[in-house]
Amino acid sequence: MKRLYAAAFLAVCIISPNVNAADDPLPSWNDGAAKSSINEFVHATIGQSSPKFVPPEERIATFDQDGTLWVEHPIYTQVIYCLDRVPAVVKGKPELAKVEPFKTVLSGNREAMAKLSINDLLKILAATSTGMSVDEFQTEVKKWLETARDARWKRPYTELTYLPMIELLKYLRANGYRTYIVTGGGQDFVRVYSEQVYGIPPEQVVGTAGGTSYGYDKNGRPFLTKDPKLLLNDNFAGKPEGIYMMIGRRPYAAFGNSIGDQQMLEYTKAGDGARLAMLVSHDDAQREYAYGPALGLPDTRAGTFTQALYDEATKQGWVVISMRNDWKRVFAFAGD
Amino acid sequence: MKRLYAAAFLAVCIISPNVNAADDPLPSWNDGAAKSSINEFVHATIGQSSPKFVPPEERIATFDQDGTLWVEHPIYTQVIYCLDRVPAVVKGKPELAKVEPFKTVLSGNREAMAKLSINDLLKILAATSTGMSVDEFQTEVKKWLETARDARWKRPYTELTYLPMIELLKYLRANGYRTYIVTGGGQDFVRVYSEQVYGIPPEQVVGTAGGTSYGYDKNGRPFLTKDPKLLLNDNFAGKPEGIYMMIGRRPYAAFGNSIGDQQMLEYTKAGDGARLAMLVSHDDAQREYAYGPALGLPDTRAGTFTQALYDEATKQGWVVISMRNDWKRVFAFAGD
Repeated sequence: MKRLYAAAFLAVCIISPNVNAADDPLPSWNDGAAKSSINEFVHATIGQSSPKFVPPEERIATFDQDGTLWVEHPIYTQVIYCLDRVPAVVKGKPELAKVEPFKTVLSGNREAMAKLSINDLLKILAATSTGMSVDEFQTEVKKWLETARDARWKRPYTELTYLPMIELLKYLRANGYRTYIVTGGGQDFVRVYSEQVYGIPPEQVVGTAGGTSYGYDKNGRPFLTKDPKLLLNDNFAGKPEGIYMMIGRRPYAAFGNSIGDQQMLEYTKAGDGARLAMLVSHDDAQREYAYGPALGLPDTRAGTFTQALYDEATKQGWVVISMRNDWKRVFAFAGD
Repeated sequence: MKRLYAAAFLAVCIISPNVNAADDPLPSWNDGAAKSSINEFVHATIGQSSPKFVPPEERIATFDQDGTLWVEHPIYTQVIYCLDRVPAVVKGKPELAKVEPFKTVLSGNREAMAKLSINDLLKILAATSTGMSVDEFQTEVKKWLETARDARWKRPYTELTYLPMIELLKYLRANGYRTYIVTGGGQDFVRVYSEQVYGIPPEQVVGTAGGTSYGYDKNGRPFLTKDPKLLLNDNFAGKPEGIYMMIGRRPYAAFGNSIGDQQMLEYTKAGDGARLAMLVSHDDAQREYAYGPALGLPDTRAGTFTQALYDEATKQGWVVISMRNDWKRVFAFAGD
């Protein structure tokens, strides 16, 4: 009787080689080259008898965050956080009200704010995210995330994650991969919500990191203060450098969306055996945004997918994910 | 019948409440305050109904290496590695032969070498451990570990680990703790052998770390070069700072043996709930060494257990492990 069941089960498998829709670990992905690349990579690296088998302890997959796991356009979420914090900071240090760039931020003039330079933003970052204890910083970020809403979808920023990428994270983890975020954003900032939003624990978040200083409060209790000193600039070459320092292993799979991720993808692909490198292309103005090569922009900022990056991807065998064509759905909250 | 067996088994358990010797996870520890502290901590933090229960994802235990997990006396293993590498380095750069401190090292004069300053040692460290690719460094360290033997026991350095501490690492891991090394030694150096020797993977080794530089070889293949630039000095306050950066969680248990570990132990104990802080005291001249408070030394180097540290341990409720009294055996290779 048992044999009969087994034979029947086998027959069903042979008759329907496609995975049942309910069993598809990537239901929000359309069939195509991107989805196939992921499935082929997973099957090649987890099968004990596969020539490209990867031992579980070496299964590392790294993900850029902004523009790869969640929306980065038109402005990074962490920059919005810093701008939103300015009034509270100026309240504590009134002398800043008359000093740039704080004066511009307080004016609320969006056009003027959009013109702030990187140096201005770094000043705002230092004023709003350093000089307090690490616990105070975490509390402030948590509080902000609960109430802040994005301008277009009127939702918490933590809901603006891409459903297909969340499925991909889970699919890789279900197959023994440890998923890391490797972000140009602040390591401390992302660690506040990474577990809840992505299922990625703080120790698996590598990001741009400042130093801390160990000290004691008036009761002799030790605490850490966030310093403005930069320890790791986790963009461009800083990504493989950060991966080496924080993980000490080369990833087998890496996912990005911009020229700031190029070195991480190169470094990943340069390893032996099966390696997967993928780039999210923002070409969906209707459901999300279209920018980068979709717009033909000559932009060279970290967060940009240039035509040169597109050409490099083709040359190097990196798989480009077209948001418009490869994703059946973009957000969990949108039924599209 | 089954019930009878169960009743008999229960009776045996009630009659002999002590764990069977074969089931004791710490067979190389003598009964006493140190062993009890470990068992009490584990039971308090893993029992679902315990008021001090710690969720699995937060179970972090950090271990200093030199003098805590393996022998550090009379000279750190990594320093011996660097000194041993000097002839090969000078062969590639003959101009160093006439320059101090390389001249002294090449002379082989042990008395003169013992007098080298910290600055001299840093110069030797930079010359022998930076300026090469991370792969070259790993290969050299592996090669050295295979052939180098310590002067007293004539064994590979990787065998000079303390058996009771290896048991402790396994016991904590068996109860859901992730064990980390947090060492003043070089992160890259320890990562070469940590998995094999301690069962601790590279991503769970936090140590003194230099930067790397991303670049390309003549075939366009990317690689990382070790830089002399210091990113993290993982001693004293650098230990909690390094833990925060690399792990992002406060440990529930921390183990050290010197004043360089004091801040890590303070930081660990300052958390809520059950926290365990322990210090290995080297008071066993026969089986290992006696130094620190056992010798009444007023030494203040990182690797030293001073009388002040001993007093602080008593005041703070840190448990001191007496190597002589608490350890039934010291090394796996010695039958004592």
